[in-house]
Amino acid sequence: MAEAVRHDKTARQLRMLSDALDSGRLGPVRRMVHTLAPAEIGNLLESLPPDKRMVVWGLVDPEDDGEVLVHVGDEVRESLIADMDQDELVAAVEDLDIDDLADLVEDLPGTVIDQLLHSMDRENRERLEQVLSYPEDTAGRLMNPDVVTVRADTTVDVVLRFLRLRGELPEHTDHLYVVNRRHQLIGWVALQDLVTRDPGTPINQLIDDELESLHVDTSAEQVARQFSDNDWVSAPVVDDGNVLLGRITIDDVVDIIREQAEHQALGAAGLDEDEDLFSPIRRAVRGRVVWLGINLLTAFLAAAVIGQFDATIEQIVALAVLMPIVAGIGGNAAVQVLTLMVRGIALGQVGASNASILLWKELRVALINGLLIGALVGAVALLWFGSWPLSLVIAAALVVNFCSAALAGVLLPLLLKRMRIDPAVAGTVVVTAVTDVMGFFSFLGLATVILLH
Amino acid sequence: MAEAVRHDKTARQLRMLSDALDSGRLGPVRRMVHTLAPAEIGNLLESLPPDKRMVVWGLVDPEDDGEVLVHVGDEVRESLIADMDQDELVAAVEDLDIDDLADLVEDLPGTVIDQLLHSMDRENRERLEQVLSYPEDTAGRLMNPDVVTVRADTTVDVVLRFLRLRGELPEHTDHLYVVNRRHQLIGWVALQDLVTRDPGTPINQLIDDELESLHVDTSAEQVARQFSDNDWVSAPVVDDGNVLLGRITIDDVVDIIREQAEHQALGAAGLDEDEDLFSPIRRAVRGRVVWLGINLLTAFLAAAVIGQFDATIEQIVALAVLMPIVAGIGGNAAVQVLTLMVRGIALGQVGASNASILLWKELRVALINGLLIGALVGAVALLWFGSWPLSLVIAAALVVNFCSAALAGVLLPLLLKRMRIDPAVAGTVVVTAVTDVMGFFSFLGLATVILLH
Repeated sequence: MAEAVRHDKTARQLRMLSDALDSGRLGPVRRMVHTLAPAEIGNLLESLPPDKRMVVWGLVDPEDDGEVLVHVGDEVRESLIADMDQDELVAAVEDLDIDDLADLVEDLPGTVIDQLLHSMDRENRERLEQVLSYPEDTAGRLMNPDVVTVRADTTVDVVLRFLRLRGELPEHTDHLYVVNRRHQLIGWVALQDLVTRDPGTPINQLIDDELESLHVDTSAEQVARQFSDNDWVSAPVVDDGNVLLGRITIDDVVDIIREQAEHQALGAAGLDEDEDLFSPIRRAVRGRVVWLGINLLTAFLAAAVIGQFDATIEQIVALAVLMPIVAGIGGNAAVQVLTLMVRGIALGQVGASNASILLWKELRVALINGLLIGALVGAVALLWFGSWPLSLVIAAALVVNFCSAALAGVLLPLLLKRMRIDPAVAGTVVVTAVTDVMGFFSFLGLATVILLH
Repeated sequence: MAEAVRHDKTARQLRMLSDALDSGRLGPVRRMVHTLAPAEIGNLLESLPPDKRMVVWGLVDPEDDGEVLVHVGDEVRESLIADMDQDELVAAVEDLDIDDLADLVEDLPGTVIDQLLHSMDRENRERLEQVLSYPEDTAGRLMNPDVVTVRADTTVDVVLRFLRLRGELPEHTDHLYVVNRRHQLIGWVALQDLVTRDPGTPINQLIDDELESLHVDTSAEQVARQFSDNDWVSAPVVDDGNVLLGRITIDDVVDIIREQAEHQALGAAGLDEDEDLFSPIRRAVRGRVVWLGINLLTAFLAAAVIGQFDATIEQIVALAVLMPIVAGIGGNAAVQVLTLMVRGIALGQVGASNASILLWKELRVALINGLLIGALVGAVALLWFGSWPLSLVIAAALVVNFCSAALAGVLLPLLLKRMRIDPAVAGTVVVTAVTDVMGFFSFLGLATVILLH
C-alpha cells in the first residue's frame, strides 16, 4: 500500500510529463515543473532519458537552477552543467548556502569558480574556503558557517531586540549559540525559550550547556548517528579550542542518511551510487565490468575445485546435477548471516566482545537449518536418483556447508572491517566464494570417498 | 575512516561495559549508562546477549525506561517488557508523547493498557484513541496531536504574551499553526518570524499559506519523501475537511528513513527487520528457513535443467566444471541491473513510460559486458581444456545469459511491483532463478548441439 501511493503519484506525473513532451506542448510541462520543489525536480530529471532531460532542464525556473543542481547525482549534474553557459551557472549558484556551494564547487568548470569567487564578498569567500579546507564527509565540510551568536550577560528582551534588528535567521535556526569574547562556545539558548520566557529573564539562566557539540573532524556517519540518537534539528561545530565554526542542520543529515542507505544497497551489487539510470553505455560498462571480473575470479576458484573431481563426476553424473544446490543454498544462508552482521557492525553493536557468542549462536542455527534442509534435499535426491548413499552424501554436505556459511558470515565481515574494507560492499563476494568452494568440495569430496568405494 | 571513528567509539564502550559486567562492578556500568541518550542505550541493549542485557536494563534510570523501549526492536522490547512489573511499566510509559505511546501500546500487556488508560486524563486518552484509530504506517499514526494554534486576527506581541503564559512548547516546534474557529488549517507562522519581526506586526502578514500539509492517510513512505524533498522540520496533518489533527516532526521521519533502509537490506536476504542479534535459536531458525526453502525451489529448478543434459555431461565432464561460471556471473550481472531498477522504482523514477528505453540501454550494456567476459572466460577455458569449440560455446552462452540477465533485471521488478510484491525483497530470488536456468540451459544446450556432432 505505502509503495503504491508513492508510485502512483510520481508515475502519473512522469507519464503526464512524458506525454506532454512527446506532443511538443511545453506549456503544461513548465507549469508542472514550477509547482515542484527543487529536490522533486532533481528526481524528475534523473528519471528522464538525456534528450528529454535537457528539454525539461530548459524549462526550470532559473531561480531554482542552483538548488536543483545540489539535488541530483554527479552524472546527471555533469550533464546539466555542460548545458549551461558561464553566466547562467554563476547566477544559479551564487545565492546558494555555503554548505551547498561547497558540495557543488568541485563539479564546476575552473572559469566559473574564478568568476564566482570574484562575485562573492570577502566574508563569504573566506567562509567557502574554510569549509573547503576540511576533508569530504566530515562535519567541517557539512557545516554552514552562518550562525547567530549572543552573549551570556544579557536578557531575553535585549536578544529579541537584536534579532528584530538583524532580520531573517538562517534556515532551521532552533537555537542561538552563546559564545564568549574569543568566540568559544559556552552553550545555547532555544528559540522556544525566547518566546515563552519573561522578557526580563537573563540569558544566563536559559543556557543549556548539557547538549554536546560536534568536533569539526567528526565523520559524516557519526554526525548522522548523533543527530538521530539525540533527535537534534541542528548542532554546533567547534574546533580543538572549542571555537564555534558553524552549524549542521537536519536537512543535510537526512540527505546523508539517504545516501548511506543507497551506498550500501548499490555497493553490495558493485555499483557506484552516482550511476545514473540513463548513464552512457560506455560508462555503465566500465562501472560494472570490474565487479564482474572480481566475481569471475571466485567463480574460477569454484570451477577449479570441481575440476579436481572430474573423474568422480564422470562416473556419477547425478553429482553434477545436484552440486549447484549445495553451493547455492549455502550461499543464501551465508548472506543471511552476513546481512545481520553488517547491520550490527554499522550500528556498533558487534565487536570483539560479543563475536564469539554470536558465532556460537549462528553455528547452532546453521546446524538446525542444515539438518532440516539437508533432510529435505536428501529425500528429494532419493526419490530422483533412488540412491541412499547419494542422498546421505548430499545431506551431510549441506550440513557442512551451512556451518561454513555461519563461520564465513560471522568472521569475514569482522575481518574485512579490520582490513578497512567495507563489509557491506565486499561481504557478499567473499562469503559466497567460501560457500561455493566448501559446497563443491564437501559434496564432491564426500561422494568420492563414500560412493566410489 | 568514517566507519572507523564510529566503530571505535561504540566498540570501546561495549568492551568497557562487557569487562565491567564480567567483573561484577556495576557502579561504572550505571554511570556510563546514565551519560547515554535513550536511543544509545537502546542500541547498547540490542548488542548485549540476553543475560547481560537484563543486568544493564536494571541499571537504566527509570525516567529513561519509556524512551528506551521506544528505541529498540520488537524482539528486544518484548524481553525488556517481560522483565518489568505492571506498576513499573505504567510509570515508564505514561509520560511518553502520544505518538511514541501509540507506537508502543500494542506490545504492552492488556492489564497495563487498562491501568494506563485509567491514569491518563480524558484529553490525552481521547488523543491516544484517535491516533490508534489510523492504520499503521500512515501520517495519522505518526502524528502527535499536541500542537500550538493561534488565530489570524492578532499581532506578534499578543502571540508572544500568549506563549509566555502557556509556557513550554512541544518539542521541535518551529511553526505555530493558524486555524479558524472550526479548527481548519489556514496556514502557519514561523517561530523565527515571531522573534525577528516588530511586535506590532499583524499575524495575518506573517502567515505562510504556500507550504503543503499532509493528509492523515498519507503513507509513511510518502511522508518521509515529502520531508526530505522539502527540507521540513515539522508538518501539519489534516483530515478531508482540512481540520488540523496534529503534527509530524523530523525526528520520527529520520527513524522512518532508517527503518526503510533496514527493511530493504534485511528483506533482500529474507530476514525480518525485528530479528535481533541474539534472537533465540528457535525463532532465528523459523525466520530463516522459509526463505531458504523458497531458494531451494529455484535451486531444484536449475538442477532439473542440468538433469536434462546428463548424457552430455557424461561425455564431456569439462562442462560440469565450467557450468557454474556461466550461471554465477549471469546472476551477478542480473543483480546489478535489478539493484538499479529497485532504486529507480523506489524513487518513482521508473515507470511504464521509460521502461522500454531502459531495457534497450541495459541490453546494449549486457551485450558488451557479455562479449568482454565471454572472451575472457573463453580464453581461460581454451588454456585449461585446449578445446576451441568448448571455448566458443562458453563464450556464446555467457553472451546469451548476460542478455537474459538484462531482460530479467529490467522486467521482473516491474512485474513484481504490479503484483504488489516488493521487488527489493523478492527481486534477487526471481532474477537469479532466471539466470541459473538460462545459464545452464544455454551452456549445456549449445554444448549438446555443437560439441556432440
